[in-house]
Amino acid sequence: MAEYRMMNNEELSAEKAQLEKLYKDFKDQGLKLDMSRGKPGADQLDLTNEMLDTLSSDAVMKGADGVDCRNYGILDGIAECKELFAEIMEVDVKNVIVGGNSSLNMMFDFVAQCMTHGAGSTPWAKLDKVKFLCPVPGYDRHFTICEYFGIEMVNVPMNSEGPDMDVLEELIKDETVKGMFCVPKYSNPQGITFSDETVKRIAALKPAAEDFRIIWDNAYCVHDINDTPDKLLNIFDECAKTDNEDMIIEVTSTSKISFPGAGVAALAASDNNIKMIKNRMSKQTIGNDKINQLRHALYFKNLDGIKAHMKRHAAIIAPKFEIVLEELANSVKPYNIASWENPNGGYFISLDVMNGCAKRVVELCKEAGVVLTGAGATYPYGKDPDDKNIRIAPTFPSVDELKTATKILCVCVKLATVEKLLENK
Amino acid sequence: MAEYRMMNNEELSAEKAQLEKLYKDFKDQGLKLDMSRGKPGADQLDLTNEMLDTLSSDAVMKGADGVDCRNYGILDGIAECKELFAEIMEVDVKNVIVGGNSSLNMMFDFVAQCMTHGAGSTPWAKLDKVKFLCPVPGYDRHFTICEYFGIEMVNVPMNSEGPDMDVLEELIKDETVKGMFCVPKYSNPQGITFSDETVKRIAALKPAAEDFRIIWDNAYCVHDINDTPDKLLNIFDECAKTDNEDMIIEVTSTSKISFPGAGVAALAASDNNIKMIKNRMSKQTIGNDKINQLRHALYFKNLDGIKAHMKRHAAIIAPKFEIVLEELANSVKPYNIASWENPNGGYFISLDVMNGCAKRVVELCKEAGVVLTGAGATYPYGKDPDDKNIRIAPTFPSVDELKTATKILCVCVKLATVEKLLENK
Repeated sequence: MAEYRMMNNEELSAEKAQLEKLYKDFKDQGLKLDMSRGKPGADQLDLTNEMLDTLSSDAVMKGADGVDCRNYGILDGIAECKELFAEIMEVDVKNVIVGGNSSLNMMFDFVAQCMTHGAGSTPWAKLDKVKFLCPVPGYDRHFTICEYFGIEMVNVPMNSEGPDMDVLEELIKDETVKGMFCVPKYSNPQGITFSDETVKRIAALKPAAEDFRIIWDNAYCVHDINDTPDKLLNIFDECAKTDNEDMIIEVTSTSKISFPGAGVAALAASDNNIKMIKNRMSKQTIGNDKINQLRHALYFKNLDGIKAHMKRHAAIIAPKFEIVLEELANSVKPYNIASWENPNGGYFISLDVMNGCAKRVVELCKEAGVVLTGAGATYPYGKDPDDKNIRIAPTFPSVDELKTATKILCVCVKLATVEKLLENK
Repeated sequence: MAEYRMMNNEELSAEKAQLEKLYKDFKDQGLKLDMSRGKPGADQLDLTNEMLDTLSSDAVMKGADGVDCRNYGILDGIAECKELFAEIMEVDVKNVIVGGNSSLNMMFDFVAQCMTHGAGSTPWAKLDKVKFLCPVPGYDRHFTICEYFGIEMVNVPMNSEGPDMDVLEELIKDETVKGMFCVPKYSNPQGITFSDETVKRIAALKPAAEDFRIIWDNAYCVHDINDTPDKLLNIFDECAKTDNEDMIIEVTSTSKISFPGAGVAALAASDNNIKMIKNRMSKQTIGNDKINQLRHALYFKNLDGIKAHMKRHAAIIAPKFEIVLEELANSVKPYNIASWENPNGGYFISLDVMNGCAKRVVELCKEAGVVLTGAGATYPYGKDPDDKNIRIAPTFPSVDELKTATKILCVCVKLATVEKLLENK
């Protein structure tokens, strides 16, 4: 077993022939496997089924403060659900708004609000140019929100502690730079958690734009998968020290705690931001689904309840991460042709293959019946400048499917690399 | 008993003294009654409690086409829920989008979309002026959406057949007039249903603005309260004849069918509009709450199921409308000082008192413990030019409360009128 880069043409050709044979064997099986999206598996969803029993026809559908959850009202969520999210996000209840079933929707609506009404400033839609910083690789749905609103995206490279702060601190001197999306814990796709130093430097930012907003997408705040979970500093605590609390809009949801299709989302922000957001919401809705809020509050009760539940998710997910990481360690690592993180939580494994090979890997996988997230999806405009990053989502397939899919992936990574090396000779 | 307008000063003063005594008696009771918002009563909400039993932990949470309703996906709603709304709105399934729990939210988001992206046109936020036509009296939450987005509102008087079409046809010659909100069946607050003639004239409009959009808020489409329900022509059928289908965005919801706090909303529109709306939604969310959609589809099954359910609502609501209408007929009508409609459905009774008296009536009621919708709320900017319209919402109070509240209201109407007549002498 030798590193591919050390091989001569003949050795590479021999290796290629062997890989092509392996690849053909898989392809001939006519498989249909999907590692493309961060969806929980059906067994994970089963974990929450009993939540539906908390409210049947004979239940008193009243919140702790007596509000009838069936009727209109309560713009920002019932008290016990706000408390639950306040505990999850470690913020004051008054700084929480409970939304509908989607934190993506809350983020989109916040950006839409900034477009039409600004953030205590000129509406962004009235400006010639609005830019957002995008830690890369990152979450495609953040990028598509920016793209939809015509917000120009500027890449900021991620390192092992989060976004490269030297680059970021330089870029925010541009007053057309109005914001940034980020996933501070178990980042999508790398599973990196921002270090204390990074969080502190973010909290201390003094952007040229006074209406600079960071959308702190804390989607994986309680989504640990092993006994050495990452710890993320509380961004609001840090921002309180730097008088920068208006800079942060945090969101999270129970999509990967209870049900992705019927969870509850929430937002945390400073008093000023909460006021502006509630003002908009008061025109937008009379209130979100309070029965579902009550269901969640009754079932999970508090953060301890959530944590116990997340251990049950971890018991299902962790072995799946292991399958992928082991196969990569065994069949890719020896060739020194790719790199990846070993995340302690989240939903993804981010695989960096050799420059110029990611699209080819995804293509080869697809032809062999394994769907991966499109190459480039982890970059703004779908353009990975090095064509190297691939996002692997191990949760949705069954263990058996995942084993096969990962084997195929590894063969494709090797085959694409050998092809590229031969091409470059 | 004589008409107040025929009375001389002395007679009016005597009447005033008598009314003040009645008023004081009520006031001294320290009542707390609310006729302000169109909220169903708790007994109405009880009608739907069994819907919660359709999905308990042992249920198969799959849609008819096999989709797992617990997981991500299905942007525009599960098949059986789309079918249900297609039947309710009498449109093709492909022209339906199922939303979250709020049709208000779908309307707000549509206007927001027009602001940032236009309606196949220049984004409205880029224009110097955008106007909307507002049939008056109308629904305050339509007006606040316009106000939030800086859309200038132009009053169009309602008559017994809907908006005054002569006025409307004139106003749409202005190309800054970009749209109109309306409640075509059992209008809020008058309970007027647009006549066939009105619907046909609306369908035949040729506005100067090509991106003119009518938000057809069909909130009360199945909300009949007696055996002589109004019939509304299908606006899309009429618009098909005039090649004007892109002009209409219809919304409705189950807020007053199932639960206001946990219902399902939907939108119907032309192929072109659906495409633009889905494009935005694909950036905004991965999908709305499919478990709640499934719950509704399983419980109501089809339009017949909805209609049977609405009869149960009517059995509770109709007597409440009767209480108000009878009291008005008995204790206000003889004095010829106010007018109102006798609606066949919807949620409101619209009371026109003598010009300049509405605010005073609401104030008097409030002081006696009866909360009404604020005077002026049924007009853009909260400004009723004649200060005459009061919206009465009879559904939320109990029958006993409603009887008392209506008695107080009638005394206040008479007292305010006598005060005004004396003032004008």
